[in-house]
Parts: sequence; C-alpha cells; structure tokens
Amino acid sequence: MSFQNPVFIPGPTNIPESLRKACDMPTIDHRSPLFGQILHPAREGVRKVLQSESAEIFIFPSTGTGGWETALSNTLSSGDTVLAARNGMFSHRWIDMCQRQRLRVEIVETPWGEGLPADRYAEILAADKHHRIKAVLATHNETATGVRSDIAAVRHALDAAGHPALLFVDGVSSIGSMDFRFDEWGVDCAVTGSQKGFMLPPGLAIVGFSEKAMEATKIAMLPRTFFDVHDMAKGYANNAYPYTPAVGLMNGLNEACRMLLDEGLENVFARHHRIAEGVRCAVRAWGLNLCAASPDIYSDTVSAIRTPKGFNATDIVSHAAQTYGVAFGTGLGEVAGKVFRIGHLGSLTDVMMLSGLATAEMCMADLGLDITLGSGVAAAQEFYRATPALSRKVAAE
Amino acid sequence: MSFQNPVFIPGPTNIPESLRKACDMPTIDHRSPLFGQILHPAREGVRKVLQSESAEIFIFPSTGTGGWETALSNTLSSGDTVLAARNGMFSHRWIDMCQRQRLRVEIVETPWGEGLPADRYAEILAADKHHRIKAVLATHNETATGVRSDIAAVRHALDAAGHPALLFVDGVSSIGSMDFRFDEWGVDCAVTGSQKGFMLPPGLAIVGFSEKAMEATKIAMLPRTFFDVHDMAKGYANNAYPYTPAVGLMNGLNEACRMLLDEGLENVFARHHRIAEGVRCAVRAWGLNLCAASPDIYSDTVSAIRTPKGFNATDIVSHAAQTYGVAFGTGLGEVAGKVFRIGHLGSLTDVMMLSGLATAEMCMADLGLDITLGSGVAAAQEFYRATPALSRKVAAE
Amino acid sequence: MSFQNPVFIPGPTNIPESLRKACDMPTIDHRSPLFGQILHPAREGVRKVLQSESAEIFIFPSTGTGGWETALSNTLSSGDTVLAARNGMFSHRWIDMCQRQRLRVEIVETPWGEGLPADRYAEILAADKHHRIKAVLATHNETATGVRSDIAAVRHALDAAGHPALLFVDGVSSIGSMDFRFDEWGVDCAVTGSQKGFMLPPGLAIVGFSEKAMEATKIAMLPRTFFDVHDMAKGYANNAYPYTPAVGLMNGLNEACRMLLDEGLENVFARHHRIAEGVRCAVRAWGLNLCAASPDIYSDTVSAIRTPKGFNATDIVSHAAQTYGVAFGTGLGEVAGKVFRIGHLGSLTDVMMLSGLATAEMCMADLGLDITLGSGVAAAQEFYRATPALSRKVAAE
Amino acid sequence: MSFQNPVFIPGPTNIPESLRKACDMPTIDHRSPLFGQILHPAREGVRKVLQSESAEIFIFPSTGTGGWETALSNTLSSGDTVLAARNGMFSHRWIDMCQRQRLRVEIVETPWGEGLPADRYAEILAADKHHRIKAVLATHNETATGVRSDIAAVRHALDAAGHPALLFVDGVSSIGSMDFRFDEWGVDCAVTGSQKGFMLPPGLAIVGFSEKAMEATKIAMLPRTFFDVHDMAKGYANNAYPYTPAVGLMNGLNEACRMLLDEGLENVFARHHRIAEGVRCAVRAWGLNLCAASPDIYSDTVSAIRTPKGFNATDIVSHAAQTYGVAFGTGLGEVAGKVFRIGHLGSLTDVMMLSGLATAEMCMADLGLDITLGSGVAAAQEFYRATPALSRKVAAE
Repeated sequence: MSFQNPVFIPGPTNIPESLRKACDMPTIDHRSPLFGQILHPAREGVRKVLQSESAEIFIFPSTGTGGWETALSNTLSSGDTVLAARNGMFSHRWIDMCQRQRLRVEIVETPWGEGLPADRYAEILAADKHHRIKAVLATHNETATGVRSDIAAVRHALDAAGHPALLFVDGVSSIGSMDFRFDEWGVDCAVTGSQKGFMLPPGLAIVGFSEKAMEATKIAMLPRTFFDVHDMAKGYANNAYPYTPAVGLMNGLNEACRMLLDEGLENVFARHHRIAEGVRCAVRAWGLNLCAASPDIYSDTVSAIRTPKGFNATDIVSHAAQTYGVAFGTGLGEVAGKVFRIGHLGSLTDVMMLSGLATAEMCMADLGLDITLGSGVAAAQEFYRATPALSRKVAAE
Repeated sequence: MSFQNPVFIPGPTNIPESLRKACDMPTIDHRSPLFGQILHPAREGVRKVLQSESAEIFIFPSTGTGGWETALSNTLSSGDTVLAARNGMFSHRWIDMCQRQRLRVEIVETPWGEGLPADRYAEILAADKHHRIKAVLATHNETATGVRSDIAAVRHALDAAGHPALLFVDGVSSIGSMDFRFDEWGVDCAVTGSQKGFMLPPGLAIVGFSEKAMEATKIAMLPRTFFDVHDMAKGYANNAYPYTPAVGLMNGLNEACRMLLDEGLENVFARHHRIAEGVRCAVRAWGLNLCAASPDIYSDTVSAIRTPKGFNATDIVSHAAQTYGVAFGTGLGEVAGKVFRIGHLGSLTDVMMLSGLATAEMCMADLGLDITLGSGVAAAQEFYRATPALSRKVAAE
Repeated sequence: MSFQNPVFIPGPTNIPESLRKACDMPTIDHRSPLFGQILHPAREGVRKVLQSESAEIFIFPSTGTGGWETALSNTLSSGDTVLAARNGMFSHRWIDMCQRQRLRVEIVETPWGEGLPADRYAEILAADKHHRIKAVLATHNETATGVRSDIAAVRHALDAAGHPALLFVDGVSSIGSMDFRFDEWGVDCAVTGSQKGFMLPPGLAIVGFSEKAMEATKIAMLPRTFFDVHDMAKGYANNAYPYTPAVGLMNGLNEACRMLLDEGLENVFARHHRIAEGVRCAVRAWGLNLCAASPDIYSDTVSAIRTPKGFNATDIVSHAAQTYGVAFGTGLGEVAGKVFRIGHLGSLTDVMMLSGLATAEMCMADLGLDITLGSGVAAAQEFYRATPALSRKVAAE
Repeated sequence: MSFQNPVFIPGPTNIPESLRKACDMPTIDHRSPLFGQILHPAREGVRKVLQSESAEIFIFPSTGTGGWETALSNTLSSGDTVLAARNGMFSHRWIDMCQRQRLRVEIVETPWGEGLPADRYAEILAADKHHRIKAVLATHNETATGVRSDIAAVRHALDAAGHPALLFVDGVSSIGSMDFRFDEWGVDCAVTGSQKGFMLPPGLAIVGFSEKAMEATKIAMLPRTFFDVHDMAKGYANNAYPYTPAVGLMNGLNEACRMLLDEGLENVFARHHRIAEGVRCAVRAWGLNLCAASPDIYSDTVSAIRTPKGFNATDIVSHAAQTYGVAFGTGLGEVAGKVFRIGHLGSLTDVMMLSGLATAEMCMADLGLDITLGSGVAAAQEFYRATPALSRKVAAE
C-alpha cells in the first residue's frame, strides 16, 4: 500500500487536504464556548446536507454501526417488530443488530444485487392492520453490492398503507454523495458516518431524528447510555456534550459541510454520478457486469463488479495492494470471491479515477483475465471528456 | 481561549507534536495487512501500560463512557447486582449507567473528597454470602475531586471475603499517568480513553478484560452490538475490525504507548507525581486546600482546589478563559462552585505548569481573593528546582 | 529542549497553528495562475505592514542576510561609500558585508547598548558636500542589545543636510512587531525575514524598495543574479518568479499579513509593547539592568539583560536548555557572557511569557544569583493584570 | 488545479507524507545542540547521495540558482574564463549568470535536444594551453529538453587535456533521481535544490565542493557574503550557521536522505528509469517524439515531448490545468510551444504516472490531435506490468 496512491475503497475515502487540517486541532476545552462554535454549525451543516429543515442531528464519537444502534435503542423496546429486507451485507448486519437487541425482525429476503422490494414492503405493511411493525429499515445504498434503493417508494408504501411505523434509513454510503431527502421522504432516523460522503477520517456516527422519532424516544425501553439522544440533546442545549466529544473530527465535519454546501448539493451529486458513470463505461468496455441488477439501481458511490465464473475476484484486491499499492474492496458475504468493488465517493477527481481503472486493468490482465489494457481507461476518458465542463471544474477543486 | 497556551483541564490533555502527526494519517485500507501493523502493536502497548501479561485489549471508536458500557454489557445480565461507591461525579455517572442498563446497584455513599471505602466494600462483600453481587465498581481516580483510591485494597476486600465478583476499574484519568497494576490488583475490566494518559485526541475507548471477564461474557445477557467484545476479538484474529476503525487514532495510540514505554512507566508516574507536587506546593502557598481529604489520596493527574466560602470557584475558570485564554476545570456536581480544578496530566512540563499556576494566581487576584502574586509560582519553582535532574530531563522530552 | 515549551529567542519565534498549516502545502505548479493568487496578496500584505503605499516588495527564498545583500547589490557600485553606525552584532555584520562587497564604509563606532547616533549622522552628512555617501545604513532594532533606534531622526538628518543618500533600514527584528513607517520615514530599502514579526519559519528575505531605490538599480554595478530585483520584478509582472519560489512560505506570509492586518497594526505594536513591559518589570524586580542604555530605546521585541560582573550570562542559556528545555538567547560579540536575551516577539501570550520569566528565575537561582523566586513573575503578573482588557483579548487569539 | 491530483512538473515534485511532516516543525533554537543533530546527518546524507566520500556539503536557504551562484562566486574572480555549452534553458541561464558576474564565457552553442558536446569540450580544453579556462560548466540534466549529458565524458575531456579547470555540474534535476557520481566523475562543484530528487518543498540550495574547489575559494575574488562557503563552514564546525537556517527544510532533507539511502540509490535510479520508460512507451504509442535526440540521452526525470508542427504545445499544459486540474510543464525558450513536458521524478508511483498519461491523452484529444485514447496508457501499463516486482514494490513505499 502506498500513501501516495488514492484509495478506491467504498470508504473511508480520500481526505481532502483542508479536512485533514481541520481535524488536526490542538486541544481545546470542550466545556468552553469555543466548542459551541464547532458543535452548532456542524449540526446545522449536517441538517442541510440531509435536505431537512427540522431534523435533530446527533453526533457521536462512534461509527455508522453506532448510528444504527442509536436509531434502534432510542426508539424501540424489547420485543418490538421491525420490517427489513436483506439484500446485502450491510442490511444483513443491521438485521443482526436488531435481533441482538431483542427485536423481532420481519425479514424480506431479497437477491443480492437487487434493491429494496418496496412492493413487498407495501404488501406487508398493508397486511399489518394492528401496526405491530414499529419501524421499517431501509438501506439506501448497499455498499456490498453497489445498489441504490428507492427510499421514496418505501415512504410511499408506508403512506399507502396508512402505517405509522418509523422509517429508518441507513445512508452511510449515500449521504453527502447521493441525493438524500430526509424531509421529502419522511425519514425518521437517518444514519451515516464521517468517513464516507463527508470525506473525513472514521470516528463519528452522524444521526438525524425526525420529530416523530424524538417522540418515540419517550416510550422506548431499550437500554442505552452512551447512545442516548436525550443526554446528547441536553448537552447540546448547553453548548456541551454528555462526555468528551471528538472535537477535531467535529471541526472537520463542520468544514466538510461547508465544502459540500459551497459546491452545492446538486453539483456534489452530479459529480459523483459523473465519476461513477466513467467507471461503469470502463466495466462495459471490459465486458464485465455489475452486481447491481439494473441501471436504475446503480450506486454512484461504489461499483461491485462481477468477475467470470471460476475466477476469485478477491485476488484482484490482494494483487492490487501487493503489486501496485492500490486499495479496492473485496466482495463480502454472498458475493465474496464473485465481485470486487471500486469505491468512487468522496474526494476524487476524474484523473484519480482513471488511475484506479488503469490499475484494475493491470491486475485483471496480470491474473489472466481477458482484458484489453487501456480499454476501460479509454471508455472512461471518452465519457469524462464529453461531460459538461462546469461540473468538471467544480470537481477539480 | 488561545491555541498557543497549554490547557490545564483534566483531559483531553495537551497533545505532543509527534502524536498529532501520528494521528493525522492519510486514508489506508483498514482491511489490508497495513491495519494489522497498527492494531496489534497498539493492543500490545496498551497491555504493557496496564502492567498486564494477559489482558485482552479492546479498542473502540468511542470514549471512556463507551468503555464503561463495554464492561457492563459484555459481562452482566439484566437484574444483576453490582457494588459501587459514589464519591464524585464520575462514579455517580457510572452508577447511573448501571441503573439504565437495568442492573441493581448497591451504592455506598461516600463523601466527595474521600477515596473508595474499601472497608465498607469488605463488610458488604463478606455479608454477600450468596454472591448476589456480580461486579464491584471502582473509580481509580475521581476526576471530579482529584482523589485516587486504593484498588489493591478493593482487591483485598474481595479476596478476604472469598468473593467471586468481577472487579471493574475506571482508570480513565489514571492509566498512563499513575501506577495501575491490572494483573497485580486482579482487575477484571479496566477502562480508559485516548485523551488522558495517552495524550491523544478523544475518540477511543480502551478496555482491558481479564480471562475471568472473558468467561463472564459467555453468559452475559445485556444486549450489545457496537460494544460487543466477541465481534471485536473475532475481527482482531483476522487483522480486522467489526466495523470501520479509527485508524489514525489507533496509529497515535501505538505511538503513544511507544513513547510511554520508552520513557519507562516508573518515570512516567514519577514525572506526573513531581508535576503534581509542584501544584500542591502552590496550593499550600496560596493558603488553600485541596478537595481531596488527605495526602495519601491526592491525585497526580488533577487537583481540585477549594476556594473560600462565599466565593464562586467557577468564576476563576470563566475568567481564565476570557481574560487569559487559559482553560482550567470547573467543579462538578456536589462541588460545583466550591472547587476549581487544575489538570496536570499527559504532555506537560514544569515550565508549562508554572504558566498555569501564574495564571491561576492572576485570576484569583483579579477576582478579589487574597492571593500574593508569585507566591504559588515560587513554591512550585522551589520544588521543581530541587527534584532530581534525571526525571526532569525525561520530562523535558 | 522540548517541543512543548515556547521558545524565547529573538527569532525564529513561536509559530501560530494557522501559519504552520498555511506553510505546509502540497506542491502546486508555481507557473500556474494559482501562484499569482499567493504572490500578489502576499506582496500587498507586506506593503501594508510596512505602512507604505508604494514600496516595491520583493520576496526571496533566503533570509534577512540575503535581504541586506539585495539592498546593497541592487543599488550600489564597487567603491561607493556608505555611512553606518556599529552598535551591536547585527549592524557589525551588515558593515562587514558592505566591506566584502567592496564598498567603503564610514563607520560611526557607537557603544553597544546605545541607539544610532542620529546627530553624528547629521554632522557627517552635512560635511559630505560632494555627496560621496550613497547610502545610509540604519539598524532599526539591534537584536544583540535590545535597542531600538530612531529612524525618523536619521531621515531628519538626511533632510536637514539636503543629502540624497539612500536610507537602508534593517527592520529584521522590528517589522511586524514594532512601529515601522516606510513612507513617513522616507525609507529606501527595508529588509526583514519571515521568522520574526511574521511568525513564520525562516526561509524568506522580504525587502521593500522605494521608487528612488528602484531608480538607483539602473546604475548600480555590483554583480547580482540570485538577488536581482529586476528579474524578480519581471517575473512578478507575469505572475511568475525568476526561479522556483518557496510557495508554502509565501502562502504562510500571505496568511501572516492577513492576521497582522486583521488584528490592526496599532494593536500588534501595543501587544508587543505590553508583553515587553512585563518582561522589563520582571528585570527590575530581579534588580538587574537592561543592556539598552535608556527607556526611550528599549526594544519591544527582545531584552538583553546584564548579569552581575563575574557571572557568565551564557550559563543561564545553557542551563535553561539543558535543565528546563527552554531556549533563551546568548549575548553576542562585545556583550557575550555579559547579557542573556529574552525574545518576546511574534506569537506570544502573557501566559507564555510568564513561563519564560519563571524559567529565567529558576536558572538564575540554580546558578547562584541572588534572585527571589517568583519576584519577576509577580512584577509581570501585576503589570499584565493592570493592562487594558482589549489588547489582552486580541493577544489571546 | 486540484490539491488531490499529483503534479507532473519537472519539480517541485510531489512530496511524500513523511517529508511533509518532517518539514513541518515547531520552532527550535537553531543555536542549541538540537540543530547539530539535524545539520550534520543532513550533510552526511547528501554526501552519500552524491556518492562521495569527501565532498564538503553546504546547505543554503535558497534555490538551485543560488547554488550556481555559490559555485561561481566562491571559486572564481572577475574576468576569469569558464567553458559552457548552451543546449537548453537552464544551461542558458547559468551562462547568463556567469556573464553578470563578470566572467568570460566560452560558449559552445549546441542544438536544444542534444547533450553536452564532450568532444568539443575536449578540443577547446586541449587548445587552452595557458589554462585560461578556470572552470567547465556542465548541466547534467537539461530540464528544458529532457536531456541527460555524459559527465564522465566531460571529466575525460579534462583529463585527456591535462587541464586543471574546475568541473561544475548542475545536478538540479538529476541528483537523487539519476546516477550521479561526484567522486568518480571528479566533480568539483555539484549543485542541486531541495525540490527535485529530494522530494521536498523548494527553499534549499544544496551544494557539494571538492577539496580542489575548496582550495580555489582561497584565491577567488568575486564578492560574496550570503553565499560564502567559508562562513558556512565556520558555522558548521560549531554546530551553527552564519545566519538563520531553514531548520524545518533541513530536517526534511535529513529524512529525505534517509529514505533514499534506505531504498538504496541503485533502486532509486532504477525506479526513476522504470517510471520514465513507461512514459516513453506512451509517447511512442502516441506517435510522438521526444525532444531528446537519441535514447542514450533520455532523461529519467523529465520528458519533453514534441507536438506536431502548427500545434501549440503550451495549450496542452493550460488545458490540463484548467480542465483536469493537472500540472504539466510548458516548453521554454527555443522550444516554447513546440514541446510540453512531463515531469516524472521524485515521489511517484506507476499508478500516479498512469493518471498523468491518461490526462495528457485527454488533453491532446480535446485539442484535436490525432491520439487514440488509452493508447499511451496501455503501452505504459504493458511496460509496468512486465518490470520486475522487486523494484515495483520498493517504489510503492
């Protein structure tokens, strides 16, 4: 692995220079007013990135997994039922967490590579006359398969059934990179981390709660202390924190939001889409297929690429690391060995992406796959050249 | 607040230059072998700092509070009884967490300023013939009062009673600064964070489990996912992590352990003691008293200083921040307004400490206390000059 | 020496966090427009710090010594006469440079500890009917003795004599810290470096030329290439540089000027004066004297403190470094062993200064001088407490 | 320009993470022993990089241009004759400097794109019976044309003629990247800067003097102060410096030498050669030619690539900067508009280089050149894949 090459994993992403510096702070007294000058703008920034007017934003020294636990433990009680689809490793893990927290999970098994089955959700919700289901879980972007699901459709399913369940969305690998509409989609809990769309080092769970979710906290009985949003909210009201905050990372988060909002969320999403399209052009040129079943669910932050039968896709990842000092992602769970993943989110340029594609080509050729060197690069070059200059310029800085 | 002045809060501490740089890392692939080269030495370093041969070390992207939750949720079940003394804000909060986790807490109320009542523990444990008590909680260093308790005495109480309860020690503000003997004291769970004796930014919960504690995890029923040590252990065995690790902080932790062990733990403890003694010389010269009831329990990491009746000690802290750009700690809970606190742990020199004492003097004089300017500084200078050159040199770098 | 303690040398100074970060830049193409966005604002900022409307500012990858050479080699010819007083090590070295450049130097020997003898300059200039003297050299602040000279008086001497000689001012240890009026004083060449009032690492010579000095360059015959201001000016006109610029330092310079101008030059000067006054209060409390002969010439950036006869003042400096990890300045040249120096310029707070004074006290006591511990600290504390809050706040950040 | 993309200019190069951090130092007292611990190892490291046992190494806060001036002004006197070939912009500038220093230059005009004409040197030296020529100037690597000259042949010419002239070599863009043999080639003055093979920010002139060159300094009459090697040597002997050193950069230089020597100079040279060969494969695939006339003089640090007649090569550089945020080098002087340059020295991996080649392809295609996208990339990929793994691994970290 080389510190000089970009990483192409689906997070943590490459960190922009300015965010490295924002995080690298000398110690301040987190009980002084200085801390409030970091805390409040960071929360406000996150709220805007979520495209919400009113979400309560909580920031924990933790990770996205801690964010999931925050959502569950603050709103639910032992024995409550939640509805979830399993279509990849991260939805799988969230379901596992529910079960450990003594929740009943109504699982909709879904082929890996497909999106959330909003129609099945609709049926189940409609059938749940007694509103046994307290929450619906939705993984916006399955990082394991490179699949983006339609959260608006899940909301529609809830609304169509007149069902009061909370809507929890795992936006770990989408928020800050792909269009995420907390208010419009009626999301009740949104979860992400610092190390994806916010382009920061890992270490923060970032969670948004709707008013309805905040109401639910009042009757939720799951035990919680570290992840208690009431303690957090009480702290915030006093410019403080229930324990020691990760000040440097929060300073970075504040700056990251500023960067994203200065660029404009539309531009940020367009930039991710454009970079991702270049990758997909390359995949086509290589004659390979994505794990994602159809274009409408292609993820703009990660592509999981199927390799030919009999070939161990994980070898590409090992070889890239050992021989070229470049990091890609392996396949996980059901698709282990069948796919390798190219992360293309966060702080990335066309130029960096082309070096990742060029490396993937060399690896595949080295390992005996029938790949024409330069073919994927050329396809991506062609695409990048043709895209409007404006978004490209924005991407360059 | 000025970035140029040292902080004198009881953590986070001032961060040495080399640790700032160790933490400020470009992104690496945490699923690559590189991560193992950080993870394993960091865990081994922590084990040595705990003076343990065999403790299982777990490192979470969290804080000391998360470390507490790790200890409880991995070893206990709902309804279990724990024994704890309340002698300050941090022991209070840990007790509160136990209660939220549906544990029964046998609380020994203890005056703030006193150490853990090992004799009361002994009586209670002896009386607990049915071993209803599953764990004994002990706050090694009460950060709120500047009181160090005798953990060996607590162990002795357990042993004298032949009691099998687990011994949990909160070493958040002692580990890495004051003598902490995991093995010799028979500690079962030790808890700390990155931002105290390890001199790093906040963001890590660092926990050590004994073999006995690991056994207890097998029957413990409290729900846990983020803080599950089994997931952690399984990850470690594969050079991996159950979710995204805070790689930069862990790299810093590795380096911090190297620094502490290179200096020699004896020297580290002696250095903290020496700096602390200088502060106590100043307090005496000012004619003030420590919150800690007697010299045998004085903390070497933080001094809580009582101010005269009728005077709001918190004013010193506000005034220091606003007028001189210096951070001290306020009194918390029962001693709010009655004490102010000077943190003297981590990365600190005599010279830095003298500037803190000089600032405290100015603040007290500004606020009308009868303090002779320079008096505390002179007392500390006298002490620092007289201490052996060796430890001083070590301290200087 | 400890990285944690401030330095108290008369430059390089302590570097503010934000300037460390501004200097630590990734490589950019210095032939791209980005460079102009650093170069031009940096030059404009320096001009304002010089309190000039029209000075041509040149920035070389060099030091103050290179700045002296720039002034001489661009405006004079072999055999030309310059007038200079020697009242310290730095004026001595400049004279030495003139002689190496084959200039004739009319030297006014002046006791070390006194300011430039403007009256003697006046006499000599008045007597120089044939205007043999082409330039008058003036060291604004003699760093070796802590003496500030009256540049306005030198200008007055020139004007009174109707003498056309150029006025060269070494402002290395004054510019950006003490009042320096390029235009009002009719300075023709002003010289400084990055590592003093600008609070940056060393590595830049910063030079201002008047229109008259620019005229002189046209006939000056001393050889020059690296330090040629015409090459520099030609480069600047094209957003470029005659060779590879020290981009990071220039970015830092740009930011440093912004910091100084945001604070307000009046406030910057007042802050330096206040910090310096505290030091002088301490010196008086110690019963010692400054090298500077009288209060009207006390330097606000460095104090040279005379120690008792028979005592080697350099021992204080060695002892402070070895025993306390603190850097002071030794005496140089004629006053070697007779004085030690405390630098008090740049990025410094009251609180930091007090730690320097406390260290000096310990050293003097350790070495057997009859110093009451805390006495100088108390005197400085008294002074700092009494000074207006506004400038103090500004100083704090 | 994007901070995220590598630069492909022929210096300053991309800076490795570890060197960024080594340069970014808090202030130390450069008159304390700490400085010696940086100075001496840095000089020793440079000596080894020069492959010399005995060269005196001088390090100035300056640039390569200042290094040239150091060589000339310390060894020569006004009116002395030097022999120099002009085969590019940098040899041209050095000649210009000689003339400004009042030296006579016997210029051998040489086509840009060709190497130094050692045979012409041989003739001229043989004819110079009276040893009027005091020094022979040789630009080892013409950065403007991407041409490496044969310094051993120049030495041979001197020896064959039994000529005592000093041999000055500009190794600015070769030392630390390409084989440079100070002792074996009998170099008398070698000149470089920090920002090329040493991979540091600009700001240091690094110069090696042979014993013979040191002898010459005793009679040399050109004026010098800032660049005086005697002052430097006297300082070094006392762990000191004649003025304020650029401590951070020197600390970085020390670390840079350690990196290069740890990798092994042979490996460093092989790595540069390999990266360069990949670039040359791409150029061939594009159907373009190098400015360098023949393979034996191809530079391993920079390639100047001729574009078709009628096409302005500078457009590629502007377009790359504006559209893709990537920096290449323009043609200079005689070849302005006719070539664009790709720098491939310093901290660079195969993967980074491929992104540079991909960008060049896009630019050329965008500007209407008949370039097949991916063609150069594929040629370089093929070459990089085929090269031995060992050197590739070394290169990766």
